[in-house]
Amino acid sequence: MDNVITQANPHTSTAPKITLIPSNSLLTETPEAGRQLAVEMARLIIKLTQPDEEKRKQIRATYGNDAMMLIAAGQTVATEFATIAAANNYWHK
Amino acid sequence: MDNVITQANPHTSTAPKITLIPSNSLLTETPEAGRQLAVEMARLIIKLTQPDEEKRKQIRATYGNDAMMLIAAGQTVATEFATIAAANNYWHK
Amino acid sequence: MDNVITQANPHTSTAPKITLIPSNSLLTETPEAGRQLAVEMARLIIKLTQPDEEKRKQIRATYGNDAMMLIAAGQTVATEFATIAAANNYWHK
Amino acid sequence: MDNVITQANPHTSTAPKITLIPSNSLLTETPEAGRQLAVEMARLIIKLTQPDEEKRKQIRATYGNDAMMLIAAGQTVATEFATIAAANNYWHK
Amino acid sequence: MDNVITQANPHTSTAPKITLIPSNSLLTETPEAGRQLAVEMARLIIKLTQPDEEKRKQIRATYGNDAMMLIAAGQTVATEFATIAAANNYWHK
Amino acid sequence: MDNVITQANPHTSTAPKITLIPSNSLLTETPEAGRQLAVEMARLIIKLTQPDEEKRKQIRATYGNDAMMLIAAGQTVATEFATIAAANNYWHK
Repeated sequence: MDNVITQANPHTSTAPKITLIPSNSLLTETPEAGRQLAVEMARLIIKLTQPDEEKRKQIRATYGNDAMMLIAAGQTVATEFATIAAANNYWHK
Repeated sequence: MDNVITQANPHTSTAPKITLIPSNSLLTETPEAGRQLAVEMARLIIKLTQPDEEKRKQIRATYGNDAMMLIAAGQTVATEFATIAAANNYWHK
Repeated sequence: MDNVITQANPHTSTAPKITLIPSNSLLTETPEAGRQLAVEMARLIIKLTQPDEEKRKQIRATYGNDAMMLIAAGQTVATEFATIAAANNYWHK
Repeated sequence: MDNVITQANPHTSTAPKITLIPSNSLLTETPEAGRQLAVEMARLIIKLTQPDEEKRKQIRATYGNDAMMLIAAGQTVATEFATIAAANNYWHK
Repeated sequence: MDNVITQANPHTSTAPKITLIPSNSLLTETPEAGRQLAVEMARLIIKLTQPDEEKRKQIRATYGNDAMMLIAAGQTVATEFATIAAANNYWHK
Repeated sequence: MDNVITQANPHTSTAPKITLIPSNSLLTETPEAGRQLAVEMARLIIKLTQPDEEKRKQIRATYGNDAMMLIAAGQTVATEFATIAAANNYWHK
């Protein structure tokens, strides 16, 4: 599968296809579940870009102690959540 | 619970589940309460990513004196607030 | 009061509660007043995160000469203003 | 006038009040004029934060040669323009 | 073709024109396919700016290990996805 | 013409006025053409800020090899495209 910088080579790539949106829907029962989906969608893009789980763990050890990265990760979740909240019409009954 | 970089291991994780949206609703009585919810939602994503309270306090000591981080934190709150304000139809009567 | 990184301790915190939206409304008479509210709302989030006025003055002395910070502050005001402008239906009569 | 980091002191401030939105309206005749307004609104926030014209010229000399700052300035203009374009209903007749 | 910083010279440019939106449509069958389109659209802008495939591979080797770049790439995908999701009316039936 | 940091001096400026939106419209026939307009609009803001073509070429040589700048340029295009796509009602027939 392609990621943001490079295109997958269909002849040599053996990477399993990653599901980017669990359950293939933006709809959730509650705002809380929508927020968890936002975190998950942000995480899966990072997984697509860096599929090596060991490297992601090393990266996390660094960024968990860096305020700027914590804030930037929060910004991405906020943007994903804006889309999910609109898709659910803000969970109005 | 998963965070933005790594997935929780359901077999070994003992971290308590963090509530990401207090009272599980985007609706607030007033713009001021909506703004406080935006701050809280931004904070809870950071808590999810760095659950260690002691480390978060150390991080805060640094970033409270760094203009770029203060501005970036403000950007995240602004994005969360945009969603909350739309959910409340901008508190029009 | 909580800020973006750490939660206030209700037992020890003596910090006065900061009002985050003056007059508790997103509605303004004019676009100009809406723009001033955007600046004010961005400023109050920074004040919440760094309540010490002396430290904020030192921070400002630095960032007033740094192009990247000036631009980033402008980005935050732009995001706040987008919400205020929508709340006021762009001041259409 | 207040800026993003510090509040003006009404007793000592002698800075003239800066108009943040020329002609106090988001409406323009054409997309081109709307784009120019977006640039102007972004510029006036920077002027509010750094009112010293000589310092702004020095800052500009630096950032005009820095790709990241050029791109970041473009991001702010894009955000301001999104609001202006919506206010003008995208200049549909 | 022009990119974000420089304009193509129609007399000397021999670069093939890059398609920026595959199938020239924002509509997709499912949210998952919309998410993949968001990744693809983000990737094609980077390809337009740096058409040399070898250089893009080198760049990717660096940024796959850098938390800030992974997060920033996720932010761009989130913004592209917001547009695609709105275009598909959030895949409501 | 003014740019984001400094105001043009009408008495001494000899810079030709730059058109910021080609054909003075956000409407395009297709999503692909809308995407190209987004790239062009992002480019023209950078040209307004750094009108010297030689300097822009030098800047591009640097940033074409820098992942963070490639990603940031993509973010700006994504924001411009969101506005163009809304203006075209997402090219629905």
